[in-house]
Amino acid sequence: MIDTALKKRFESYLSGLNFDKEPANLYEPIKYTLGNAGKRIRPLLVLWSAKTFGVEIEQALPAAASIEIFHNFTLLHDDIMDNAPLRRGKPTVYKKWGENIAILSGDTMLVWAYKMLEDYDGTVYKKLNSLLSKTAIEVCEGQQMDMDFETRDNVSIKEYIEMIRLKTAVLLGAALQFGGIIANADEQDLENISDFGIKLGLAFQIQDDYLDTFGDKDTFGKRIGGDILDRKKTFLYLTALQEASPSDKTGLQTLFHSGNIPDEQLIAQTIDFYKKYNVDKIAQNQMETFTREALQSLDKTTLSADKKTFWQDFAKNLMLRKS
Amino acid sequence: MIDTALKKRFESYLSGLNFDKEPANLYEPIKYTLGNAGKRIRPLLVLWSAKTFGVEIEQALPAAASIEIFHNFTLLHDDIMDNAPLRRGKPTVYKKWGENIAILSGDTMLVWAYKMLEDYDGTVYKKLNSLLSKTAIEVCEGQQMDMDFETRDNVSIKEYIEMIRLKTAVLLGAALQFGGIIANADEQDLENISDFGIKLGLAFQIQDDYLDTFGDKDTFGKRIGGDILDRKKTFLYLTALQEASPSDKTGLQTLFHSGNIPDEQLIAQTIDFYKKYNVDKIAQNQMETFTREALQSLDKTTLSADKKTFWQDFAKNLMLRKS
Repeated sequence: MIDTALKKRFESYLSGLNFDKEPANLYEPIKYTLGNAGKRIRPLLVLWSAKTFGVEIEQALPAAASIEIFHNFTLLHDDIMDNAPLRRGKPTVYKKWGENIAILSGDTMLVWAYKMLEDYDGTVYKKLNSLLSKTAIEVCEGQQMDMDFETRDNVSIKEYIEMIRLKTAVLLGAALQFGGIIANADEQDLENISDFGIKLGLAFQIQDDYLDTFGDKDTFGKRIGGDILDRKKTFLYLTALQEASPSDKTGLQTLFHSGNIPDEQLIAQTIDFYKKYNVDKIAQNQMETFTREALQSLDKTTLSADKKTFWQDFAKNLMLRKS
Repeated sequence: MIDTALKKRFESYLSGLNFDKEPANLYEPIKYTLGNAGKRIRPLLVLWSAKTFGVEIEQALPAAASIEIFHNFTLLHDDIMDNAPLRRGKPTVYKKWGENIAILSGDTMLVWAYKMLEDYDGTVYKKLNSLLSKTAIEVCEGQQMDMDFETRDNVSIKEYIEMIRLKTAVLLGAALQFGGIIANADEQDLENISDFGIKLGLAFQIQDDYLDTFGDKDTFGKRIGGDILDRKKTFLYLTALQEASPSDKTGLQTLFHSGNIPDEQLIAQTIDFYKKYNVDKIAQNQMETFTREALQSLDKTTLSADKKTFWQDFAKNLMLRKS
């Protein structure tokens, strides 16, 4: 799925940005964060989108970097909020440099996400900036909802979907719009390609929840059942609560709040509840529904048939992942 | 000095911005922060600058709000880094809502500082955005330098001036430029009015250090000697270290690091060192030098004589303050 040559081009562009600046305590964490590459899925979405809407990817590199720097800013601050020790196998900035530096270098990255857009002009510049602000606010709202959910016992599926839409999905939609904006795509195309990204993001996030519990331990890469052990209010857990009989609902909630139960037992008993109420099937259905809606939005764009095929393949590959 | 009617107009504009949004845990801290009004000096600089460069203040209100929201974002995050319990007599967001919410609502405010600029278009929009980014990065750099200084024993006066330039002064310069940009002032005027603000900011910050130790306790409003008790590396302390004989330098450093000395004794002995080396006079001279340089930059602008008089009076009143 990942275009290796394009990813390499992006890496080379990103590492060409000059963060060898003073004070070192501010810029070292930024270089460290940006150098710890993930799949770079968001910047690749910007570049592919620019290409399918008809401009050279070189023109879209600053916007792709903006999205990636923004995304890494959110990870940096989220890691403080979650007390996360590791990110992609390496110590988080918060663990390595302390919280104050993590706050401040994160702030600086957010500003750099805007600064990258200065390569553009006129209405393209304004559209990119406004979309970045709109999206950034939504991502912050999603993160706050996620934090609020931790102490709430009555989270609905609808609220959960809204949370993952804001926290994760809108940024994928914005990445796709970024490419379209640079190519001067019309408003209707921007809206449809954005919706394609958002719906795919929702499907992806529910798949994340699904694989964490029902994935194949040989291909998943992480321990199966991690979300259960972390007592995360996932799509699976919330669906089970919604579907269960009153006594099973109480049983699952009691299990969820129990402190001294062995890990394997907690996982097995939770999965029993999930299976009893077909939570795995419901999650798969929901993923399929969102993927279908994504493809419907894609179909509404004015992109040519071969461009649509490219994105259809992308969506299918994304949903076939095992990890 | 403060134009009460104009401040009122700004307050009414600011409170008209709709932050009654969900999730409440994200937006309540923003309303709380923006409602806890200080002198509103930075937005007033934007409005006065717009006026002296020839546009109606109504046009400059969104830019004034942008600067004020940005400034309050920095306070919100700084309060976490400084573990500050109080801000303008009220509990800080960090104390009231906890650190995670303080990080996230601060992030959201930074985005809103950009969002406010969407009221403008074309080159004005791009100039305002670029200047906000440039200034924001400088403010972060200044804050990092300030944090670095805490654990360094060899901070030079030059480094200290650079730190306060970045952390405090450039934002005053940016506020003045904001007004000029909206009025389509030419580049030379923007540079000169910015330098007027920066130099005045430097004078103001050194005056802050001066008043904290040599101010009149009846008019100062805070406890005299607070910086000494906090072991802050102020302009006074760093100047004393620079001027003192080797033995007095060691004596002052030992005093500065001593843990169990009564407050009044620590303050009195530090002031003895300061007076022995004329630190109070040196600080006053430095304030006067920066103020003079500020007025020279003002004079280079193409503003009319009465507009220049307005800013000269502003500068004089600022430097006559007792608190």
